[in-house]
Amino acid sequence: MKKTWKWGILAPGKIARKFTTELQTLDNAEIVAVGSRNESRSAEFAAEFGVEKAYGSYEELATDPDVEVIYVASPHSHHAEHAIMCMNQGKHVLCEKALSLNLKEVIEMFEVARKNNVFLMEAFVTPFQPSYRKAKEIIESGELGKLQYLHGWFGFNSAPYDPQGRLFNPELGGGSLLDIGLYAVFDALWFLGSPKDISASAALTERGIDTSLTMRFDYPEGVFASLYSSFYTASGPGCDIFCEKGVLRITRRGILHQQLETRSRGTDPVRYTWEGDECGMKLEAVEVMKCLDEGKMESEVMPYSRSFELMKTLDSIREHAGIHYPGRG
Amino acid sequence: MKKTWKWGILAPGKIARKFTTELQTLDNAEIVAVGSRNESRSAEFAAEFGVEKAYGSYEELATDPDVEVIYVASPHSHHAEHAIMCMNQGKHVLCEKALSLNLKEVIEMFEVARKNNVFLMEAFVTPFQPSYRKAKEIIESGELGKLQYLHGWFGFNSAPYDPQGRLFNPELGGGSLLDIGLYAVFDALWFLGSPKDISASAALTERGIDTSLTMRFDYPEGVFASLYSSFYTASGPGCDIFCEKGVLRITRRGILHQQLETRSRGTDPVRYTWEGDECGMKLEAVEVMKCLDEGKMESEVMPYSRSFELMKTLDSIREHAGIHYPGRG
Repeated sequence: MKKTWKWGILAPGKIARKFTTELQTLDNAEIVAVGSRNESRSAEFAAEFGVEKAYGSYEELATDPDVEVIYVASPHSHHAEHAIMCMNQGKHVLCEKALSLNLKEVIEMFEVARKNNVFLMEAFVTPFQPSYRKAKEIIESGELGKLQYLHGWFGFNSAPYDPQGRLFNPELGGGSLLDIGLYAVFDALWFLGSPKDISASAALTERGIDTSLTMRFDYPEGVFASLYSSFYTASGPGCDIFCEKGVLRITRRGILHQQLETRSRGTDPVRYTWEGDECGMKLEAVEVMKCLDEGKMESEVMPYSRSFELMKTLDSIREHAGIHYPGRG
Repeated sequence: MKKTWKWGILAPGKIARKFTTELQTLDNAEIVAVGSRNESRSAEFAAEFGVEKAYGSYEELATDPDVEVIYVASPHSHHAEHAIMCMNQGKHVLCEKALSLNLKEVIEMFEVARKNNVFLMEAFVTPFQPSYRKAKEIIESGELGKLQYLHGWFGFNSAPYDPQGRLFNPELGGGSLLDIGLYAVFDALWFLGSPKDISASAALTERGIDTSLTMRFDYPEGVFASLYSSFYTASGPGCDIFCEKGVLRITRRGILHQQLETRSRGTDPVRYTWEGDECGMKLEAVEVMKCLDEGKMESEVMPYSRSFELMKTLDSIREHAGIHYPGRG
């Protein structure tokens, strides 16, 4: 019989609700505690999900001896601080993306994980999703020829401008890059690896936060990627992959519905779709517990090196686009 | 009864065959002569299309008093020379895109047209095509909100590398930019106008010709366009338009089949399709003869100003991407 892992939820906001809803469906996960700086939010979440212990601080959650794995869902700006606190208490951590605000902080997080011999993984769902795994399989099979160009994007338009809101606040790592742009960046890294050159251009608010952003990655031999993110387009996420013999498009309607379509000359389009169970955030939790069962402190699908590469690239994009987080690069 | 216009075809190659096939279906067009530097190619074309006069030089075609309108279909590198020769003989001219190799030459072509009081239009089919006209109508209606981002592309992969071939020869204005990239550039100009900033990156052959090319246009208020062209991707042409409330995609399977699809949140996609007669190159000829019937020396749909703006933009892209045509910028 598989071990049941005891989870704690740190910062019970919107994203934690989505994750917990899926986590509850896994029979080897038990949610034993939740921690918020606000006691009533914690209690409300505990009642909603039937969680036994509701703490009014993150520290109480981190020091609860019952808790084995903590899902960190606070704003990007606090990921490093919270994950490090949990890991220093010997807890394994699944930490929401972006892992932190800059590469220096990400490296520190890895060091703390190693020092404490605990598991740490960035909660980045893409590499676990069937559309991306199938797309990679198709590209690697060579049936579409060499990958020449990738266009990745993520836009939503449901956040009215609020200078204090998380999305627009530089103190909280606001801006489209860390919230959604990094999905497009991840697409390029996932299919093409590290670019040899980066350029970027952003529309910045008066507080220096990017509301729309374009990025271009140059690879050897004339291979390119164009990437885009914005708080002002209702496009959702997507990725078009242009190859020598055809084009592959990945789209999704919400996180639980994914579609992949390939088109090559002279043939009918081929479509693949995945729904619900196959696509969601619980794939991250499944991976965490699989690694823990096997005694691994790092995922092979979303390893340290991938988070390192992602944040290194994000740092470079920020430098080119003039995006800064006060006191943190 | 409408006047029947007497056409001559200059340079009877592949593109002229496509055009002539469609021109023949118009009841107010008569194809009276064809001119090639190669007499047997001319004779072959005349036999194929039932054209009375086949000349072994462009000069004979340009000076034939029967001919009223000449379609110039030679390589880009010779458009200016040939169009100017025809216009100086008092002929109206429909000249294939790219109109020439640089802005200076394009300006000279306009000046010659004005001086001789003849009609001149760049044979650029996009603004006549129903998908682009419908797309513009939808954007201007405001139903999708403000246009925020445009991704335009054109790729084909059917030209094996041949340093002497037209596509790869800098002396002939080779490279993806003038052959297909300008369609993507036109898309951005058509929907967004002139950018305030341009950046570009190209893969160049040893002779300095771009086989793949990415371009980024920056517009005010965080609006961007990413554009791509390549001789190494089997993508065909397309354009995605990202707006505040949804996304609009224009695609085509060959020049005679066009599709437009709009997607906005919470509604089913809306699709429009057009086939054959509605889409082809003959739309250009229809416009030419309509203007001539009305005594106009310039098209309002594809006016001088549009060709001027397009070539000015192409010059700027070349400067950023390091693409040069020997002796011509």
